[in-house]
Amino acid sequence: MEKILLINGPNLNRLGKREPKHYGKVTLRDVEISVQELADEMGLDLSCYQSNHEGEIIDKLHWAEDAGFKGIIMNPGAFTHYSYAIRDAIAGIDVPVIEVHISNIHARESFRHVSVTAPVTAGQIVGLGVKGYLLALRAIETIIKER
Amino acid sequence: MEKILLINGPNLNRLGKREPKHYGKVTLRDVEISVQELADEMGLDLSCYQSNHEGEIIDKLHWAEDAGFKGIIMNPGAFTHYSYAIRDAIAGIDVPVIEVHISNIHARESFRHVSVTAPVTAGQIVGLGVKGYLLALRAIETIIKER
Amino acid sequence: MEKILLINGPNLNRLGKREPKHYGKVTLRDVEISVQELADEMGLDLSCYQSNHEGEIIDKLHWAEDAGFKGIIMNPGAFTHYSYAIRDAIAGIDVPVIEVHISNIHARESFRHVSVTAPVTAGQIVGLGVKGYLLALRAIETIIKER
Amino acid sequence: MEKILLINGPNLNRLGKREPKHYGKVTLRDVEISVQELADEMGLDLSCYQSNHEGEIIDKLHWAEDAGFKGIIMNPGAFTHYSYAIRDAIAGIDVPVIEVHISNIHARESFRHVSVTAPVTAGQIVGLGVKGYLLALRAIETIIKER
Amino acid sequence: MEKILLINGPNLNRLGKREPKHYGKVTLRDVEISVQELADEMGLDLSCYQSNHEGEIIDKLHWAEDAGFKGIIMNPGAFTHYSYAIRDAIAGIDVPVIEVHISNIHARESFRHVSVTAPVTAGQIVGLGVKGYLLALRAIETIIKER
Amino acid sequence: MEKILLINGPNLNRLGKREPKHYGKVTLRDVEISVQELADEMGLDLSCYQSNHEGEIIDKLHWAEDAGFKGIIMNPGAFTHYSYAIRDAIAGIDVPVIEVHISNIHARESFRHVSVTAPVTAGQIVGLGVKGYLLALRAIETIIKER
Amino acid sequence: MEKILLINGPNLNRLGKREPKHYGKVTLRDVEISVQELADEMGLDLSCYQSNHEGEIIDKLHWAEDAGFKGIIMNPGAFTHYSYAIRDAIAGIDVPVIEVHISNIHARESFRHVSVTAPVTAGQIVGLGVKGYLLALRAIETIIKER
Amino acid sequence: MEKILLINGPNLNRLGKREPKHYGKVTLRDVEISVQELADEMGLDLSCYQSNHEGEIIDKLHWAEDAGFKGIIMNPGAFTHYSYAIRDAIAGIDVPVIEVHISNIHARESFRHVSVTAPVTAGQIVGLGVKGYLLALRAIETIIKER
Amino acid sequence: MEKILLINGPNLNRLGKREPKHYGKVTLRDVEISVQELADEMGLDLSCYQSNHEGEIIDKLHWAEDAGFKGIIMNPGAFTHYSYAIRDAIAGIDVPVIEVHISNIHARESFRHVSVTAPVTAGQIVGLGVKGYLLALRAIETIIKER
Amino acid sequence: MEKILLINGPNLNRLGKREPKHYGKVTLRDVEISVQELADEMGLDLSCYQSNHEGEIIDKLHWAEDAGFKGIIMNPGAFTHYSYAIRDAIAGIDVPVIEVHISNIHARESFRHVSVTAPVTAGQIVGLGVKGYLLALRAIETIIKER
Amino acid sequence: MEKILLINGPNLNRLGKREPKHYGKVTLRDVEISVQELADEMGLDLSCYQSNHEGEIIDKLHWAEDAGFKGIIMNPGAFTHYSYAIRDAIAGIDVPVIEVHISNIHARESFRHVSVTAPVTAGQIVGLGVKGYLLALRAIETIIKER
Amino acid sequence: MEKILLINGPNLNRLGKREPKHYGKVTLRDVEISVQELADEMGLDLSCYQSNHEGEIIDKLHWAEDAGFKGIIMNPGAFTHYSYAIRDAIAGIDVPVIEVHISNIHARESFRHVSVTAPVTAGQIVGLGVKGYLLALRAIETIIKER
Repeated sequence: MEKILLINGPNLNRLGKREPKHYGKVTLRDVEISVQELADEMGLDLSCYQSNHEGEIIDKLHWAEDAGFKGIIMNPGAFTHYSYAIRDAIAGIDVPVIEVHISNIHARESFRHVSVTAPVTAGQIVGLGVKGYLLALRAIETIIKER
Repeated sequence: MEKILLINGPNLNRLGKREPKHYGKVTLRDVEISVQELADEMGLDLSCYQSNHEGEIIDKLHWAEDAGFKGIIMNPGAFTHYSYAIRDAIAGIDVPVIEVHISNIHARESFRHVSVTAPVTAGQIVGLGVKGYLLALRAIETIIKER
Repeated sequence: MEKILLINGPNLNRLGKREPKHYGKVTLRDVEISVQELADEMGLDLSCYQSNHEGEIIDKLHWAEDAGFKGIIMNPGAFTHYSYAIRDAIAGIDVPVIEVHISNIHARESFRHVSVTAPVTAGQIVGLGVKGYLLALRAIETIIKER
Repeated sequence: MEKILLINGPNLNRLGKREPKHYGKVTLRDVEISVQELADEMGLDLSCYQSNHEGEIIDKLHWAEDAGFKGIIMNPGAFTHYSYAIRDAIAGIDVPVIEVHISNIHARESFRHVSVTAPVTAGQIVGLGVKGYLLALRAIETIIKER
Repeated sequence: MEKILLINGPNLNRLGKREPKHYGKVTLRDVEISVQELADEMGLDLSCYQSNHEGEIIDKLHWAEDAGFKGIIMNPGAFTHYSYAIRDAIAGIDVPVIEVHISNIHARESFRHVSVTAPVTAGQIVGLGVKGYLLALRAIETIIKER
Repeated sequence: MEKILLINGPNLNRLGKREPKHYGKVTLRDVEISVQELADEMGLDLSCYQSNHEGEIIDKLHWAEDAGFKGIIMNPGAFTHYSYAIRDAIAGIDVPVIEVHISNIHARESFRHVSVTAPVTAGQIVGLGVKGYLLALRAIETIIKER
Repeated sequence: MEKILLINGPNLNRLGKREPKHYGKVTLRDVEISVQELADEMGLDLSCYQSNHEGEIIDKLHWAEDAGFKGIIMNPGAFTHYSYAIRDAIAGIDVPVIEVHISNIHARESFRHVSVTAPVTAGQIVGLGVKGYLLALRAIETIIKER
Repeated sequence: MEKILLINGPNLNRLGKREPKHYGKVTLRDVEISVQELADEMGLDLSCYQSNHEGEIIDKLHWAEDAGFKGIIMNPGAFTHYSYAIRDAIAGIDVPVIEVHISNIHARESFRHVSVTAPVTAGQIVGLGVKGYLLALRAIETIIKER
Repeated sequence: MEKILLINGPNLNRLGKREPKHYGKVTLRDVEISVQELADEMGLDLSCYQSNHEGEIIDKLHWAEDAGFKGIIMNPGAFTHYSYAIRDAIAGIDVPVIEVHISNIHARESFRHVSVTAPVTAGQIVGLGVKGYLLALRAIETIIKER
Repeated sequence: MEKILLINGPNLNRLGKREPKHYGKVTLRDVEISVQELADEMGLDLSCYQSNHEGEIIDKLHWAEDAGFKGIIMNPGAFTHYSYAIRDAIAGIDVPVIEVHISNIHARESFRHVSVTAPVTAGQIVGLGVKGYLLALRAIETIIKER
Repeated sequence: MEKILLINGPNLNRLGKREPKHYGKVTLRDVEISVQELADEMGLDLSCYQSNHEGEIIDKLHWAEDAGFKGIIMNPGAFTHYSYAIRDAIAGIDVPVIEVHISNIHARESFRHVSVTAPVTAGQIVGLGVKGYLLALRAIETIIKER
Repeated sequence: MEKILLINGPNLNRLGKREPKHYGKVTLRDVEISVQELADEMGLDLSCYQSNHEGEIIDKLHWAEDAGFKGIIMNPGAFTHYSYAIRDAIAGIDVPVIEVHISNIHARESFRHVSVTAPVTAGQIVGLGVKGYLLALRAIETIIKER
């Protein structure tokens, strides 16, 4: 079974509580369960992780490569817009990363229109709500097969 | 059966011939067949359309609403980056549109980093190759159900 | 009787259906009838035209000069903000053009604050709703007289 | 009879003398008489005012609301391009304001392309010469009726 | 005999009538005849095309490759400055394109200083009037020989 | 008793009437009374002033120094964003000025995010409503003591 | 007794040692004691926290809401200028935050003129030295009362 | 005797008191006396004027033309950097204006590097202290002679 | 026989050695011989010049006018992008200059996309390799004839 | 023996594995050994530290001053480009810092061209590979001697 | 007798021939004679120099200090807008420099609005024609006296 | 013995005299002697060169390659910030260049923050005073060995 890592960045632990207008009422636990169910169905070995700490996310990305993960689904939260350190971590590992955003970042404040991580990811899924994580899982499976 | 429209914009008729480094070797016909197969499997009624003409795409978007389409998957090609007229057409119809880009536009020339249509779409799927169209079909189904 | 041409650009065929918050509930047909009535009253020979196709609008502008039109009222829709080709067409004919916008484009998204066509028109009427077309007809009459 | 206020901003007292290439040879007195005649004809009670002082224009706008004026026609002159204080005054009164410019500001120096007052007005009429004031009077009447 | 295509973009059908200060008094027909004469002399098989429609120009570029043309001379008119769709069409065909501008675009409005198509062409000839087309024909011959 | 001057700039005479969403329902008279009461309690000699005229505010600032005022609390209204003349007046007097804004200017239009006067003031209190004036009075007292 | 949290961000643990020209000679311990004394006097239950770690500050903000804090006084230090993650944390909790800066950030390097957190706070107090924290405590009390 | 007007703008009434580092210790009265002495010597009829009010300066410029002044020496103070209304007033009168700045505005804050009035003046003298006014008087005499 | 001057700017003496990817393997001597041959054939009197010194190129341009040259072909090398002094020299002589670039400067680093000399030349030929010089010679002949 | 601290920032723990095109094949351990050897030779007491956590690097910088370090060699990795918090930490300690970058950051993506930390360091060594650390050690020795 | 140096930069040797619209018909020789005459009258020892070579002007500035010149009048021509090397030369000598421009550079192309040398000069005289040199001589005398 | 060239650009001949705050009191002669001594010690054959003339520096760079130099240490002075011609010369020779700046250019005026030459050099050493040249010599030796 291929190992897949799901990383959620800052403030996503508050999902369901935080600004439901943008992020809906589903909690992070709900999201992780949904993705887990689809992973089980697809025969993938999913691990879930969340952190509000940039450094820990970088550590986790490094660890993922060393631990043999084959794909990463990542919602970098606000780090999307300025963390060149996370960008470098993604670029530096040989594991494909798909970037997911729950809300349509292009329809919000202008600072959210730019992703500094996107150029080094395998792709992005934006604005499709929690469903975006499930689609990312399907996409990562295809990418792994094609490598 | 819900009616879904697939619109491909300028130069996508050349898929498979045009710049395979960015777009791969699959032709537009292949893409449409793949999406058709998944649509059949999902019980959706898919129509496919391609045009190099901005005005025709606008006409098609208007027609889609009048003809009772429930969702649109659209790769606006280069119009993504400047066609405010297509943006207005999307904003003006009551049919959700998902924007798909085959290549990772954020890793290419800087003019491709901005999408003028994205703010009025339901979401974007970027950089995941032809697979992106299939994911969009799954996403549009969810959106239709939730409306 | 002087010949006057009324051109409406992309998405204005959806007037009344499209985003009533910005454009109101009056249809394009209603607008054309109102302008026609005033034209009749003023003894002007009005022709109406709408297209979502940039090229057709350029063709129409060229034709207007050749066909002896004395003035043009034009709402270029979203082409206002990027169609340098329409700008060149306006600059290249010897027929005065008045630009009309139904909504107050300066109070909306920032891309709508700039008009690339305005510098080569005879004037602009902005934000005064459908009434703007009627005022433009009165203005064009004055301009024709003073030429 | 509805009360309407006509405000002309800085340097417009020099109309007819100042830069006839841009503003023509008609004097401010001529303009005021023309607008007065149309107001009489339309059964509107017009007052005219001109000042080169930003503060006085702000005072006048406040006074207009208190004195029961129903509409304002205003050519803010060069204040158009930087007076956020006049903008706030317009936004702060419950009287619709139509902004008029005699010359086509979009065809002149780039600093004239931006109006800081436009976003809070009811509409703009630009480049149509002295005729623009008359059209504004017709427009203001419609706006008053529809409120 | 090598097949060469000459494409003229929007408003160039008005050459000779339109803004003679910038474009001179020669008509498009005159230009096409001059280029034809030189082509005959050089033993090249020239076809001429003009359109005000972006989509038709894209279609023509695609067709040119399929129909075995060996070189294209193109004056994209105002599309030069914003049509990323035409840029993609040029980049996507395996036929060299030389961009020609009659007037010195660098000495005119600032929006004309940038060409979005130039980076994917084989070269540009700017400001040399109708003579530019003839020079382009000579250049394209060299390019064909060296391929 | 130390003399303190309270200056309110353009449109603040309309407080309570003007855009209550941003500024609340308290009138300028109410504000001045509140600040007066706190001044009395603190043993400070407060004078209040309001003007919509940039020049008068500059005159007042000059006068304040000459008349022996020890501190100034100032809400420059929209002059905050462009009056370099007021900035120079503040910089030119040897009396500390605290800048107060009732609303959170950083959460409103982008032109309000920049204060040209702030760099030469002793400090700013922003977004805390009418309470901001009272806090400024407490702050000015500390500053006076420490001089 | 209402619970209030005081958060000081990066490098504020060095207060008194670090760049006294900008920050004075008072230590963080001194500041916390002063605020504590005023809190006691006002009958508020104050907790103090300092961290150089962005992630820990985000965790603390989340915890503050869960632990029933009613108001937060925060000097985000340099995070003010780029931490969109902290901004999102502030926006995502239902506890009012007042932003305090000891020095006048508008009179220093240009990167300090922009606060990415300010738009989602309840207000800012800038440049008033350590006194700013005390004023913020008074302000937060008012805000709590008015909720 | 030719009539010459000397206009000093905002805050220049504080010359000698205000920021001596930039402006020296000479008072406005001293400056006016010096210029008067040179004017007497040169046989010119000098009038002096100072105001902190933009509107009054505009009025004065208009009056200068009507009153037969042949040249104006003007230090617009901070209005230099944003008063398009004063710019228009200068452009609108047929009297040459020479702009004088006591300090070297190019060596100070960046907002002082741009003069919005300079493009419509006859010339500028910058950074040469009070001497600059005397040089301007000599220059204006030459300009008058050459008209 | 008309005298024509060929000027090559900095680093073009290294042609053939320098970055063959951009400039090919032909040396400057080869280029000059080719242009000489065509000049002979066309009956033109060609002089060739190369310098890495901006000042010498300016001197040469001045000399060219005094010495009766009728046209100049110039590749300003990197001076193209910043030498306003060469621009002024070109503008100041009454001899037409055609600007030639061997490589397609629009497809290289962004600083090469702007030519400060282009606005004052008669035209530009870009990206057509050494052939560009020959085309320029043909163009200059036409320009001379039409003067 | 003087104490020197070597700090490597985010992703430098992956040296040798990460993007060898930019960073080479030497590991961080190798680098530290090399610097250690030179330090021994120079009689300096070197400590090495690496972290992916911004907050820990700030803590370390504070600690370095308290622990009596005399110089710091630091490769801030991607934090170079946005961490104003690290900048403030460097500025706030009285220990000279030399910034080292292994690759030539000026020849890579544009976001890497700006260093927010450089203005407060003692100097930078860029693009000289691992050798850069050794040169920095020599430089820091000189700086310590000269203090 | 104090030694004064007059330096004229690139293309000023063509004065009288070059673009008389901007620079008039007076030759450089005429200018130098006029300044010489005034210098004689004022008892100053004037030397005149002109060069189109940036490096020679730098050499001359260095030499001027070594040779005991007390003041420099300089028209840097187009070097004004980009020669940071000349700026450094001016800043590096202990001789005051007054910058003179014959035409009103603020009323011409936008690249001429910025002077990179102005911040390190003693002052500028702009737009006053050849008279500007004479005024500069008077100014330099005052500056020398006050040192 | 490997030949190494040391090039110092404009104004560096004034080292020791010029702005000692930025550049110290050591003369260029001192610098050259220090570098010479280290070169002798390292067994390298050093030549020294200084010029204020951009063209001569370009000539020298070309000559260095032809004369068999193996490495170049260069302080381009102010040419760093705009001389694309020197950049091209560096890029066009097959000799590694290390760029040295005595002062910390990132802590000075903003125009000094950008180096147009840096992207084509082998590395930069910035802000380390005269010591920087010695470090560059050590670095160039390593680079030569590794080629």
